[in-house]
Amino acid sequence: MNAAQPRPEKFEPDAVAGLNPDFVELVHAALDEANTDKAKALAESLHWSDLADLLEKLAHDRRETLVEALRAEFPANVLTELDESVRERVIEQLGLHQLANVVADLEADDVIEIVEELENHEREEVLDALSDDDRTLVEEGLSYPEDSAGRLMQRSVVAMPTHWNVGQAIDFMRETENLPRDFYDIFLVDPRHRPVGAISLSRILSTRRHVALNALMSADLKLIPADMDQEEAAFLFRQRDLISAPVVDDAARLVGVITVDDIVDVIHEEHEEDIMRLGGVGEEDDLFAAVLDTTRSRFSWLMVHLVAAIIASGVINLFAGTIEQMVALAVLMPIVATMGGTASVQTLTVAVRAIAMRELTPANALRTIGKEIVVGFLNGLLFAVLIGVVAWLWFGSQALGGVIALAIIINFIVAGLAGSALPVYLQRLGFDPAVASSAILTSITDVLGFYVFLALAALLLL
Amino acid sequence: MNAAQPRPEKFEPDAVAGLNPDFVELVHAALDEANTDKAKALAESLHWSDLADLLEKLAHDRRETLVEALRAEFPANVLTELDESVRERVIEQLGLHQLANVVADLEADDVIEIVEELENHEREEVLDALSDDDRTLVEEGLSYPEDSAGRLMQRSVVAMPTHWNVGQAIDFMRETENLPRDFYDIFLVDPRHRPVGAISLSRILSTRRHVALNALMSADLKLIPADMDQEEAAFLFRQRDLISAPVVDDAARLVGVITVDDIVDVIHEEHEEDIMRLGGVGEEDDLFAAVLDTTRSRFSWLMVHLVAAIIASGVINLFAGTIEQMVALAVLMPIVATMGGTASVQTLTVAVRAIAMRELTPANALRTIGKEIVVGFLNGLLFAVLIGVVAWLWFGSQALGGVIALAIIINFIVAGLAGSALPVYLQRLGFDPAVASSAILTSITDVLGFYVFLALAALLLL
Repeated sequence: MNAAQPRPEKFEPDAVAGLNPDFVELVHAALDEANTDKAKALAESLHWSDLADLLEKLAHDRRETLVEALRAEFPANVLTELDESVRERVIEQLGLHQLANVVADLEADDVIEIVEELENHEREEVLDALSDDDRTLVEEGLSYPEDSAGRLMQRSVVAMPTHWNVGQAIDFMRETENLPRDFYDIFLVDPRHRPVGAISLSRILSTRRHVALNALMSADLKLIPADMDQEEAAFLFRQRDLISAPVVDDAARLVGVITVDDIVDVIHEEHEEDIMRLGGVGEEDDLFAAVLDTTRSRFSWLMVHLVAAIIASGVINLFAGTIEQMVALAVLMPIVATMGGTASVQTLTVAVRAIAMRELTPANALRTIGKEIVVGFLNGLLFAVLIGVVAWLWFGSQALGGVIALAIIINFIVAGLAGSALPVYLQRLGFDPAVASSAILTSITDVLGFYVFLALAALLLL
Repeated sequence: MNAAQPRPEKFEPDAVAGLNPDFVELVHAALDEANTDKAKALAESLHWSDLADLLEKLAHDRRETLVEALRAEFPANVLTELDESVRERVIEQLGLHQLANVVADLEADDVIEIVEELENHEREEVLDALSDDDRTLVEEGLSYPEDSAGRLMQRSVVAMPTHWNVGQAIDFMRETENLPRDFYDIFLVDPRHRPVGAISLSRILSTRRHVALNALMSADLKLIPADMDQEEAAFLFRQRDLISAPVVDDAARLVGVITVDDIVDVIHEEHEEDIMRLGGVGEEDDLFAAVLDTTRSRFSWLMVHLVAAIIASGVINLFAGTIEQMVALAVLMPIVATMGGTASVQTLTVAVRAIAMRELTPANALRTIGKEIVVGFLNGLLFAVLIGVVAWLWFGSQALGGVIALAIIINFIVAGLAGSALPVYLQRLGFDPAVASSAILTSITDVLGFYVFLALAALLLL
């Protein structure tokens, strides 16, 4: 490096990713001082995805003030980025008339994302504000089933006949007015508009004008039927490292294209579903939902657990006499239940995740269940020894130690069996394996744990 | 439609997504008949990502036979797609010498993904097989911290000076031999090679040759420091719907590019981590791990729960005399613990998810904790009434109903407080909020549930 040249300063990324907390504080302060002009100016300096984040992070009344300030030129893209429950409130505040103005700036797939959540009459009012062309696109999109590829796709696609060459392709793109804003592949179609190949733009750009497109194209094309579930489509994208993929109708004709940025959102949604269901919370139960909505959405799951707990209590009640004679049983019985419950949730988590990733299929279900039973048995053995010794030393009874050890082994084996077989079975019946599994499982291991432990005690100790 | 023309048949996608189970059966059958030629031919007909799936789904001995058959021309890309524990076994089977031959076909970022898991001396042997250029690229990549943007990026980038026009850009790409296989944006750099703007390829292709690049470029560029955590980078991609983003060194010079397909893998990894940690299983604990590895990886988590359970038993033991006098307490006490545990896991799940999505930050932590306490109180009230009535009717004691109702309310409030405050606090201390939270939480709600219920009973009922 030339000594006379100044050393480049160390690069300091300002806000590394996302909103700076200090910035949020500035907006807070401005709103609390009723300085809405300043708050508005701050908000307008943000990228729309950061503005959406800001709106999510503000308390309800502050958010209302800011939305009011932004109302006249509310940025359309912010709506698509907002969390659903916040979006609902913002839309309510804007009113349908203003909402219609706002969505008129969006592309058809984004409009669909917003209006699909509205009531029918509200939807009509918003669609009325669109141009006829846009309205047709949105209505066609809405005609596909919810969560399908058809809802997700963009309608405008760059398609060309197979007999063109690179030069013709480039000239066509330069001359066409209404190209999609962003696209990554060109699709080659036969005369019936069925896709037969794809060429990435980087391939086009690194090739001379005279080369024929069909010499460049990759024919190993995954066609996505418009009614395919979005989760299937996301699987394909991940599997093949796709950036965009053609969507086709019943007759295999090209009707749209799905791009990976929409898939990233789908992946997040699906993961959220899995994690929420495993934790026993509804999808609508997020950080921004109102207190009463959250309370209601958790109630039903708690109710399921209550029923399970009452059944477990009923089992304990069968042995009330035994416990009266030997209160150590009441002291120790939660250990059997806790350990069985934990082991079964571990197994369940691995199984649910593997089903979601399509690693666990009918082809290896039996082998997996078998493995989980062996794992349960081995850990059961280890913990049986540990817990047996603890019980023996604590209550000075070798027999009590033996009884709890036996109960632990049995409960671990059942935990391995039920934790893997239940989600596989639910999936086969067409249910989401994450739903209900954990309540049913804990119920099984609790009831069984209490029963085995207390029954063995009644049989062997008294 | 012309009546003479045959109606297009309904389009039937063959294997909609992923491997066909019948196909897996065919391979099974071929391997079981020791017809390795047929199995090999079937395997070779697959796309490499499907072949990776197939290898994952085969039982250990069948997989070994198939890998042996494929050994001579083992497809390099299959290795990058394999699940980690299966990959480890396949690598062991292939041997370092063969592995070195195989990875020589891969791009530097894929080689990094494979060799970063090897021991130092194994890594050396594999790197020795690479060309000097490739070896340098891989070693530079390995010099970045694990899970950083530097490890993830591709080193070869399409960068141009700002003063070029579209025609020059296209000519450059046509004439350059070593362009990256796939790229989506062109980066414009200043004379010190610092990125100042980006242009998507679709933009280039729809613009005439004489237009200056700096008229097309978007200057609102997010630079990713090479040492940024991959999770941060993934957040940026999702936030901005990016397809590719420039990676820069300390002096803000362009050193590589990250593309969205790698980000999709990161998102999956991070989600897997979250879900596994919430369920109390290690990341290495997947469907394909060996029985002993799985047993060992689950043991430590079970141990944590055992300690928690023994503490809970200790609490119960304090009230052994009370239980002896009133065995109904032993019957009902699991209800208090189960309900508190369930409520706290619900809260925890929402909080962990919100932290991962950066919805829960210091700016709204207090508000969130407050909301969760209110939700806990409200559901606590509802279930207190329900459970109180059940206890009253079951054991004919209004006082017992009152005691359990009071215990339920207290436990729900604590569940809301601890379930939200604990992950926030762990995160602030620099821990992963999903780790340990659920064991600590269940321990809190168990111990507290038993204590409050039994102590109130001792105080008020006897």
